[in-house]
Amino acid sequence: MTKLKQVLYLLAGLALWQHAIAQPAARVKAAMGKVQLQFDLDKEGAPQYAVWLGNQKAILPSALGLVLQQGALNKGFTLLSSTTTTTDTTWQPVWGEQANITDKHTQVVVHLQHQSTGYLLDIVFRVFADGVGFRYQMPQQKNLLHCVVTDESTAFRLPGNYKAFWIPGDYDTNEYEYTTSRLTEIDNTALVKNSTDIAVRVTPDNRSVQTPLMLKGDDGLYINIHEAALINYPAMQLHVSADSLLLRASLVPDAYGNKAYVQAPFHTPWRTIIISDKATDILASKMILNLNEPSKAGANTSWIQPMKFAGVWWEMQTGLSTWSYATAPDNTDAQGHLIPSGKHGANTANVKRYIDFAAESGIPGVLVEGWNVGWEDWFGNWKENVFDFVTPYPDFDVTALQQYAAAKGVHLIMHNETSGSATNYERNMDTAFRFMKQFGYPAVKTGYVGKIIPRGEHHDGQWMVNHYERVAQKALQYQVMLDAHEAVRPTGLQRTYPNWMACEAGRGNEYNAFTNNGNAPEHETILPFTRLMGGPMDYTPGIFKLKGYAAGAPDRQLHTTLAKQLALYVTIYSPLQMVSDLPENYRAHPDAFRFIKEVAVDWDDTKILEAEPGDYVTIARKAKGKPDWFIGGITDENSRVATVNCSFLEKGKQYQATIYEDAANAHWKNNPEAYHIRTVPVNSESKLSLPLSAGGGVAVHIALK
Amino acid sequence: MTKLKQVLYLLAGLALWQHAIAQPAARVKAAMGKVQLQFDLDKEGAPQYAVWLGNQKAILPSALGLVLQQGALNKGFTLLSSTTTTTDTTWQPVWGEQANITDKHTQVVVHLQHQSTGYLLDIVFRVFADGVGFRYQMPQQKNLLHCVVTDESTAFRLPGNYKAFWIPGDYDTNEYEYTTSRLTEIDNTALVKNSTDIAVRVTPDNRSVQTPLMLKGDDGLYINIHEAALINYPAMQLHVSADSLLLRASLVPDAYGNKAYVQAPFHTPWRTIIISDKATDILASKMILNLNEPSKAGANTSWIQPMKFAGVWWEMQTGLSTWSYATAPDNTDAQGHLIPSGKHGANTANVKRYIDFAAESGIPGVLVEGWNVGWEDWFGNWKENVFDFVTPYPDFDVTALQQYAAAKGVHLIMHNETSGSATNYERNMDTAFRFMKQFGYPAVKTGYVGKIIPRGEHHDGQWMVNHYERVAQKALQYQVMLDAHEAVRPTGLQRTYPNWMACEAGRGNEYNAFTNNGNAPEHETILPFTRLMGGPMDYTPGIFKLKGYAAGAPDRQLHTTLAKQLALYVTIYSPLQMVSDLPENYRAHPDAFRFIKEVAVDWDDTKILEAEPGDYVTIARKAKGKPDWFIGGITDENSRVATVNCSFLEKGKQYQATIYEDAANAHWKNNPEAYHIRTVPVNSESKLSLPLSAGGGVAVHIALK
Repeated sequence: MTKLKQVLYLLAGLALWQHAIAQPAARVKAAMGKVQLQFDLDKEGAPQYAVWLGNQKAILPSALGLVLQQGALNKGFTLLSSTTTTTDTTWQPVWGEQANITDKHTQVVVHLQHQSTGYLLDIVFRVFADGVGFRYQMPQQKNLLHCVVTDESTAFRLPGNYKAFWIPGDYDTNEYEYTTSRLTEIDNTALVKNSTDIAVRVTPDNRSVQTPLMLKGDDGLYINIHEAALINYPAMQLHVSADSLLLRASLVPDAYGNKAYVQAPFHTPWRTIIISDKATDILASKMILNLNEPSKAGANTSWIQPMKFAGVWWEMQTGLSTWSYATAPDNTDAQGHLIPSGKHGANTANVKRYIDFAAESGIPGVLVEGWNVGWEDWFGNWKENVFDFVTPYPDFDVTALQQYAAAKGVHLIMHNETSGSATNYERNMDTAFRFMKQFGYPAVKTGYVGKIIPRGEHHDGQWMVNHYERVAQKALQYQVMLDAHEAVRPTGLQRTYPNWMACEAGRGNEYNAFTNNGNAPEHETILPFTRLMGGPMDYTPGIFKLKGYAAGAPDRQLHTTLAKQLALYVTIYSPLQMVSDLPENYRAHPDAFRFIKEVAVDWDDTKILEAEPGDYVTIARKAKGKPDWFIGGITDENSRVATVNCSFLEKGKQYQATIYEDAANAHWKNNPEAYHIRTVPVNSESKLSLPLSAGGGVAVHIALK
Repeated sequence: MTKLKQVLYLLAGLALWQHAIAQPAARVKAAMGKVQLQFDLDKEGAPQYAVWLGNQKAILPSALGLVLQQGALNKGFTLLSSTTTTTDTTWQPVWGEQANITDKHTQVVVHLQHQSTGYLLDIVFRVFADGVGFRYQMPQQKNLLHCVVTDESTAFRLPGNYKAFWIPGDYDTNEYEYTTSRLTEIDNTALVKNSTDIAVRVTPDNRSVQTPLMLKGDDGLYINIHEAALINYPAMQLHVSADSLLLRASLVPDAYGNKAYVQAPFHTPWRTIIISDKATDILASKMILNLNEPSKAGANTSWIQPMKFAGVWWEMQTGLSTWSYATAPDNTDAQGHLIPSGKHGANTANVKRYIDFAAESGIPGVLVEGWNVGWEDWFGNWKENVFDFVTPYPDFDVTALQQYAAAKGVHLIMHNETSGSATNYERNMDTAFRFMKQFGYPAVKTGYVGKIIPRGEHHDGQWMVNHYERVAQKALQYQVMLDAHEAVRPTGLQRTYPNWMACEAGRGNEYNAFTNNGNAPEHETILPFTRLMGGPMDYTPGIFKLKGYAAGAPDRQLHTTLAKQLALYVTIYSPLQMVSDLPENYRAHPDAFRFIKEVAVDWDDTKILEAEPGDYVTIARKAKGKPDWFIGGITDENSRVATVNCSFLEKGKQYQATIYEDAANAHWKNNPEAYHIRTVPVNSESKLSLPLSAGGGVAVHIALK
């Protein structure tokens, strides 16, 4: 690593650049691979940046800056100096899609001074071969200690009317289906209004979208915009300017419309732009992880164990049983005790049934929801003190179940639903985590269904972003793995908090359980380009009974084939991966279930073989510490043939591929559960041709012969 | 106690009533002593009430009702039935102004049904000989579980343009000077604007005032309006209608403008109207305490010990030393350690000086503020994580001081300033209380200076009201006494939580320390009729050095005489009573200091001898378990003579009265420290004539000969 410091530093080899912005007051450039960054101060001292991929414009000159209560820091700057450094390192995540991650980038820090206020502001750019990240840094300085961020001037000006894969810029949820449209067509009004299957929807700006935002240009350029290391700051949404191809950062506000309360020295999260002319490169990018801080978990991470888990959960989502013990909070007997409805899912006998299933299947975990009192009146009323996180229902025997599970080598996974009342959770968090340790729960699934308390805060605002981090820190302190549902979408913080294994923060498989809308066949082909760019998702794949599973809704069905459900274990990465369906539905298909039993959840390597957002994704991954490879391929509503070049296999070795594919007559709509399993010998020279039905998928396990 | 139930129950003896409201749809009456209550449903089914004292109108027919998001429950009612009960009991507070309190009242519950929604609403009236309390109760019922209270229709229509003793209806503070004006003249605009010595001021309604509101009519009637048992509800302010003599309940809102989130069954706090034709009766009323629930402290209350305490505090308020250790948060050495300014008050040597003083004076406690890290940057920036409540500054030796104090029979009193960040305090509260127990702190003074976090909440809103109660409950759990500063004003909850000994919630003596405005001579004559109606106040009396005490403000002075400072120990009741001045200032006046050493903080009995709001107050109290009586008399800016009839003394016993009075030439302005001490023999036949200078007072200790 070398360090050089000079004004208007020009990287070698960039001398031929002749890019736009007429006569800037100051200019700094940097590049890595084909990605080129240019920073300018215009004549008004307004900072701007632009990005190219080779000779292709990716981001046209776009605004930078922060607006503080203390002053608008988006023009009137002088460039004091700039510092350029290069980094080329490789690091090992505790778990992940690959064992080694290379972080090679050029960093440019531009040191700005605001002329009228004298405030110092640094902008840090990191240029990677697959994109650019940048953030604002407020150095320690006289006369500026506390800042209230009221706006962020960051913009992303696109060179064309890109096709966007977007969901509404909602302050409280990401659980929408994706819309594919031109940038200029973005309007979330009707979508929000009609999404009655989502509990909380707050979208004051009808032209705002969430990140990660996936974009595709007519020139073949793929651009993904998101953020990395979201800490002590609200989530960034993007406002789409109707009259130009401009996306502007839009931060989730608090009750007063303020965005962030920060104290110098501080820095914002990284704004990330991943660029390629190949869609597969977008999915292969590790830029967001590279922009996050190293692990805080210390040397002993043996307690962080990626794993699959079954759960007393799908039966509730589908209405076969209930989270609650009684039908209503006032359904009590003369002594004031709740009268059991007989439909309570988390009863000891039923939980044992799942433990038995997990034990016989080699699945390490069993999640149990609805085990603790409060579910008769838990949601929708902005009630602050719903759960205490430690009091079981009378029919859930904590000690007996712990012992029963332990004897079978299975761990129960804790469920802490907060009903959006973060204040209540914070008050009880130590008690909750002590309970987990006392009863041997290695992991907790948290939930934030409903409007947030503190009232005035939003799921994706600064206060809640800090809350989620506090929970991750508390879990780290107690050595508990964390899977956060309804939390803000991830931004690569799993590098820093490797016990924060997964988030929901998207429209999961559960929508197929409790609504007829469900998720369209293309949904899972978009997720990798959007939600998953930030980190693992607890999507809860693996449903085998695809029709007739929902109580009282006989026509409801998943928009998938069974083979596609298998493929999701590879295409949707999570180190906590649910085996979501009921035991009896797996036992009905032991041959297909074998793939789920065998598929890994932690990987040495990952190859993005084919990908096109909204159309298809094919990914191959090598199991951590094993020679086995697993392939998942999925398609949208169109059938296709996935072509897999097996060159990733070790040369000279002979393997056998077990292929779980859609039956020839399979179709997500009319024949979803028809699959076919075949085995073929393969080696690094092989090419596999894998047919996918409409709405279908394919899963392959390649093992040494 | 008897119970009778009937529609339109008329108490015996009330048959001759012929009071207003033309032809109500339904009417219920009740009385106790001279106080008469009438409840009516008018022809629109709107509930109303009126109150008389004998034949004098006190409250003209006034509206009742709640406005919920679920419907406006203030008209369209049917009276289902009413229930009348009478109670006559006597109970013993853990501590207080008298050892026995009689609760004699007639209770009427009117059971209403709202016609269009079918909702049930009860209104409960309790009629005492000194006033009326009423509250709304939402019974458990079908179809109404969760309610959002958006407004309360309660009104208080006065029969004349009463003189009011008021402070602005601020959502976040009660630390104003009182204004005396006619109701129709109330406008807080200029007052709020000019009160720059108050940290946070939020008064969207310029015609709103705080309760307790003291009113005096031209007909000689005294009326006090407040509330009792404020739990899980926002504080009530009163909006003064400009065009009529109408006060309307105005509840402190949350970020969304909502007032309260409640769940049936629930009840509101009691709205209290204390009435008499004698001002002394207002001060003697125990109605607010009677309307609170009994103690939750259990049988063992031996750890709840009323006491006096000195403190490392006045020296900071006056600028002689600082809470902070360094001058600024970035004033650090090369290792990042704060560089001491040399002005830090809470250093071990200085604290020992106060412990020595307390030990030699028989004062049980020493409060130390500024002992813990964070004070370099603690206030005014809405910063969430300022204090951790357990980390001392390097020059404050927790263990050594605990041992030093214990060896001298003195207890240190904890200080937990939250800087308004209740969320941070709640996260750290268990840790903070464990620390107190570990180091033997029997009491904690909490503080809430600055804007509240959760942002969007106010000091006096429902969420914070619940927070203060959570702190009281936590203190109860850990057996710690609580003195809450900048919290909502009290409403008699000290009965229910006898460890919640005192609150500030008013303009204390400290304003004389850090501002030139200070408190006018009349201030302490109004406090008993307003702030103190709800409960004890940690006013911090006892300043002996009345001029030249403030660093850098040589002309600053208290608006009091020294004798008046002594009298405040009797006129302003608190079971935690500060001995506020510096040790050296007490040592300069050992004869006067003797009164402070001897005065009690817990009482068998209290006699309100003379009182007129804004003019004077004279109170005699008998020390708990002792034959000693203490008298405090204070006046406003006018000199006067207090006449004390000693008939409260035990007949046949001979006493000696030590009288601490203003010297003949004393005057608050030019000669405040001149006092005179004399002793006279007294018995129950005696009459004392006690001269008070302008802005002066008198203190008397009557002991058996």
